[in-house]
Amino acid sequence: MIQRFSFGRPFPTGSVVETLPIATGDVPFLTPDESGWKLTLAEDAVVYGLGEMPRGINKRSWHYITNNTDESHHGEDKLSYYGAHNFLLIRNGLGGDCFGVFIDFPGKVYYDIGYSEHDVLRFHTEEPNYELYILTGKNEAAIAKAFRKLIGRSYIPPKWAFGLAQSRFGYKTEADVREIARQYRKNQLPLDMICMDIDYMQDYADFTVNKDRFPDLKKLSDDLKAQNIRLVPIIDAGIRINPNDKACQEGLEKGYFCKKADGKPFVAAVWPGKAYFADFLRPEVREWFGSWYHTLTDLGIEGFWNDMNEPALFYSPERLRELLDYAASLRNKDNIEHHEFFGFVGKVMKLMNSPEDYASFYHEVNGEKIRHDRVHNLYGGNMTRAASEAFDRLRPGKRTLLYSRSSFIGSHRYGGIWLGDNHSSWAQLLANIQLMPNVQMCGFLYAGADLCGFDGDTTSDLALRWLEFGLFTPLMRNHSSSGTRDQEYFRFTKELPAFRKMLELRYALLPYLYSEFMKAALESTPYFRPLAFDYPDDSDARTVEDQLLLGEGLMVAPVYTQNAVGRHVYLPESMKLLRLRSVEDYDEEILPAGHHYLPCALNEVLLFIRPGCIVPVAAPAECTAQLDEEHLTLWSNLSAGQKAVYRMYTDDGETKTYEKAENWRMVE
Amino acid sequence: MIQRFSFGRPFPTGSVVETLPIATGDVPFLTPDESGWKLTLAEDAVVYGLGEMPRGINKRSWHYITNNTDESHHGEDKLSYYGAHNFLLIRNGLGGDCFGVFIDFPGKVYYDIGYSEHDVLRFHTEEPNYELYILTGKNEAAIAKAFRKLIGRSYIPPKWAFGLAQSRFGYKTEADVREIARQYRKNQLPLDMICMDIDYMQDYADFTVNKDRFPDLKKLSDDLKAQNIRLVPIIDAGIRINPNDKACQEGLEKGYFCKKADGKPFVAAVWPGKAYFADFLRPEVREWFGSWYHTLTDLGIEGFWNDMNEPALFYSPERLRELLDYAASLRNKDNIEHHEFFGFVGKVMKLMNSPEDYASFYHEVNGEKIRHDRVHNLYGGNMTRAASEAFDRLRPGKRTLLYSRSSFIGSHRYGGIWLGDNHSSWAQLLANIQLMPNVQMCGFLYAGADLCGFDGDTTSDLALRWLEFGLFTPLMRNHSSSGTRDQEYFRFTKELPAFRKMLELRYALLPYLYSEFMKAALESTPYFRPLAFDYPDDSDARTVEDQLLLGEGLMVAPVYTQNAVGRHVYLPESMKLLRLRSVEDYDEEILPAGHHYLPCALNEVLLFIRPGCIVPVAAPAECTAQLDEEHLTLWSNLSAGQKAVYRMYTDDGETKTYEKAENWRMVE
Repeated sequence: MIQRFSFGRPFPTGSVVETLPIATGDVPFLTPDESGWKLTLAEDAVVYGLGEMPRGINKRSWHYITNNTDESHHGEDKLSYYGAHNFLLIRNGLGGDCFGVFIDFPGKVYYDIGYSEHDVLRFHTEEPNYELYILTGKNEAAIAKAFRKLIGRSYIPPKWAFGLAQSRFGYKTEADVREIARQYRKNQLPLDMICMDIDYMQDYADFTVNKDRFPDLKKLSDDLKAQNIRLVPIIDAGIRINPNDKACQEGLEKGYFCKKADGKPFVAAVWPGKAYFADFLRPEVREWFGSWYHTLTDLGIEGFWNDMNEPALFYSPERLRELLDYAASLRNKDNIEHHEFFGFVGKVMKLMNSPEDYASFYHEVNGEKIRHDRVHNLYGGNMTRAASEAFDRLRPGKRTLLYSRSSFIGSHRYGGIWLGDNHSSWAQLLANIQLMPNVQMCGFLYAGADLCGFDGDTTSDLALRWLEFGLFTPLMRNHSSSGTRDQEYFRFTKELPAFRKMLELRYALLPYLYSEFMKAALESTPYFRPLAFDYPDDSDARTVEDQLLLGEGLMVAPVYTQNAVGRHVYLPESMKLLRLRSVEDYDEEILPAGHHYLPCALNEVLLFIRPGCIVPVAAPAECTAQLDEEHLTLWSNLSAGQKAVYRMYTDDGETKTYEKAENWRMVE
Repeated sequence: MIQRFSFGRPFPTGSVVETLPIATGDVPFLTPDESGWKLTLAEDAVVYGLGEMPRGINKRSWHYITNNTDESHHGEDKLSYYGAHNFLLIRNGLGGDCFGVFIDFPGKVYYDIGYSEHDVLRFHTEEPNYELYILTGKNEAAIAKAFRKLIGRSYIPPKWAFGLAQSRFGYKTEADVREIARQYRKNQLPLDMICMDIDYMQDYADFTVNKDRFPDLKKLSDDLKAQNIRLVPIIDAGIRINPNDKACQEGLEKGYFCKKADGKPFVAAVWPGKAYFADFLRPEVREWFGSWYHTLTDLGIEGFWNDMNEPALFYSPERLRELLDYAASLRNKDNIEHHEFFGFVGKVMKLMNSPEDYASFYHEVNGEKIRHDRVHNLYGGNMTRAASEAFDRLRPGKRTLLYSRSSFIGSHRYGGIWLGDNHSSWAQLLANIQLMPNVQMCGFLYAGADLCGFDGDTTSDLALRWLEFGLFTPLMRNHSSSGTRDQEYFRFTKELPAFRKMLELRYALLPYLYSEFMKAALESTPYFRPLAFDYPDDSDARTVEDQLLLGEGLMVAPVYTQNAVGRHVYLPESMKLLRLRSVEDYDEEILPAGHHYLPCALNEVLLFIRPGCIVPVAAPAECTAQLDEEHLTLWSNLSAGQKAVYRMYTDDGETKTYEKAENWRMVE
């Protein structure tokens, strides 16, 4: 059951797709608490949800603020990341209440989940205008499913988007891109996509191409597509201020950019220097901005990533002026006190993504001026929507790849997400594992982290261990920042066979992974999920933070610590262990329920098949297009004489005819 | 066996106490490699050592630089922390070579331990002038012991330094300090020390007291000592530039500060603003600086912490001038390119601890001018030495508490260390566990991390879990930065009984912990150590990164993940588990060797007694002075009829008569 409560004058965020009557009675489970709500937590309470947020699967014992933020240092101390995913799924102790909470609000929501007091959960919105949905059901899985139905079907990418994407901030020329493709093919490492970061643009301006570096992008795209490799360019939120830039001029003429109180367009610097920011909350602006993607779809581009759309702001001219004036005042001093010095350093650090800047410009919503910070969390997701709705016009009936850095619940219907600018560390590999079930619970099925890590220098062992988890994530992208160690998989020459075999394993598992993804999308079921979803009465299962159930039949238990040659695994029931060195080279063993220490060498991955389950496996291929799904091997965990059927999903991978009955095959 | 090799013209660092003949043959195990040395690593090689460094107990698969650094963001991506501990202990695969390497060099040493290539270890010194010691022995433990003998006996603090220390950057007045003492005693939380951060000084100037805030420090010290609580003030490395500051004037007159090339004293800003830096490499300067501690020992102070002694530099006037000039040039620009903007931010971040500054001043060593960066790593440790040698004069025959932020191997004879400015995160609790065996291997027996975390906001569960490990570390200090959540243990009112019981457990275990510390110091044995030290042939034991052996009879296995209610533990042999809620309330069970999952609630600690071992336990006390070591309970893991004897160490805890035979008692 879902109850909808309404407070004040809620802003229409577009997060939900079902219109429920407004409930009149008391809000169940929660107690009013000053400006928000409160719940006493049992000692063994578990709180799932919040999507893209720091810390573990269980969000307890920390505080959070949904406030979409370009956060370049991920870690336990943070309160906000890039997405606003205001869904909580609470099991208040084994045998206790189990319910979901969705706070439909476009601004900041503050959560204190046992942070101030270990046994008290509190939350409140920045303003008293919001809708509150309370979801009940027989267990975690049922509530999660009801929530997914409430918010509508998740975005489905083309099938090739389940291949490997290679990316780096630093592919500066056509030659660079061709060399990446060449190395992958030469080294027989499967690949489906090469992402293009901002270097392909002319001076980092959206919807332009640097003709010196990329003289014929259409030909490059065509040539690579002939090798079954798609180019996936970036589009940033800010539009460069330049009189020669058509998008800029057109947006200015039409009055489509966000404006300051004085009616002049808001300006802040991002990669191309000073820029304007389209008012994505207006349908006509979304339509206009989205149409600009034609400049690239016309060249044969079929996929995009939207970036910098929190929106990230390097600085506003006003804030920079203040800082430089302050610096000038320090220049005249002989001795600077430590508080002045740290004050200065602090001012520099606060130039970026300044709250003052977010409070200095406005959106137009149905003729009303709304200050940006009040609806901040809707910005990036509406850029995604702008692009997605444009693709329906530009590429009718076709799927277009799209994923975004910033998001809110609602934008999951328009695109996927990647998990932002992480860094090359073992902690971030674990964060990737722990983030997946919570972002998928919030609708973002097509998701994944930058494998090997974006910032900082990776190592060959981290890269390999991370791939051993990443090969199960729907979005599988290796991406890194400029100035960091090269980390394309072909760079690790000594470990090349192990990388190749793990990439091949991903492709071999695609009949299963794609089927499970499509079931999740079409049937509102989970893809990744915590163990407690399927074993709600198992008190050990509910505490497991480093294993995930994957679709109907699998459990993964990645190794995520450096120099480990195995790990402990908890089995809530007997399962078949596959210790895979490749799709063809593995040990198998039926393990009883319980706790186990399982050896797992650097080139091995632990995969568990649940009883009565079948997993269809294809022969490895160098790209999704060459995957032979007619000749399948079946991995299974069946008792003697047991029969089972696997519902396998196959389609053309390109059109939106998801619902055809022929897409389903029974495999046994 | 220890072989000493000498290259070029080594600088006398004072790290070793034994003078060995210089070997003439080839260096065993290692191969010359460009400017350094190289070793091919077996797939299962383990590399211990490097003391205070990022990452795990096994240092493999990362690179490091010994370059003492005021690092305010601890994490996997770092290459250097506060100490220079150039000792490696290598087991090149199970059954492979086992040997130690000590690089005696005062500047930067670069290590690549399987970072560039997973199977290659390389290291080299900044200059070709160094001594290289190669240590061999029958196993890890034997080599570690030989190394400890080579570098001389570790510092031994007074016994009260094994009690709890409460600290915070933010106790601004005598009233603040008294209130801390009052709350601890009122809440029956044991306490032995209150640390005073820079707020006690007049404008943060060393060897001054702010008379407004602390009108009678002697009386405060006396009053607290009557409650068995010692004050432990901070001393920073930099001497404030102020004509009214006697230490400053005297140092200037005597020419005792480090000088620039032009002969003028080097200036950089730290907490008090612009400061000079004593040339601790000169014996007469050490004697002079150390003597200034009398200003506090005269007031009854018996313990100190030396801080900011890498030395940390906020900025030099020259570097700040450059930056402000650059800021002025930006002020005249209309549009700033992103590389100029990030260049500016980068310059601000690089003001602190600038390599240019470290290369701009000189030490005087036997009449020769030595540029600071060439001997940088000796600075902090020689400040420790200055203090320690002064205490021998100021408090003859007495032990004085002393620990330092910066250190090098050699300074372990003069003081302990704390593990620097960590932060409130679960990752840093694990880092504390992993750092302990490596810093103790390098001689720093009296060591510990800031419990609850220094920077950032702690949580009650992190504070409790961290204490459950911290109660075993020789230095047990709760310390936090200004502006962070209050974290004195009495603040956690809901969990107060659990905190009290864990603190009581520490005090109850002191007969064992102090005995084991004194054995380690007097007999060059380890206190904390990796499992492989005692089980060198156990292939599982060598990979354990989150359990430590503690003295003769115990193993600890702390819980270090949020919301965990248990953990996996590996037992190399059968042990007795104590699951302790307090010294009197615990479950016990004999567990067989192997892997186990063990429940461990938030208020419980897992402790393991090895077969044939006895642990003497006292009744809890509110301070070390009140510990009754005559009436002991014995915890043991003895088979039926088995007899065992525990060598217990007791002394007056204050004088240096460590070697007296009467200090040893046989307990059975």
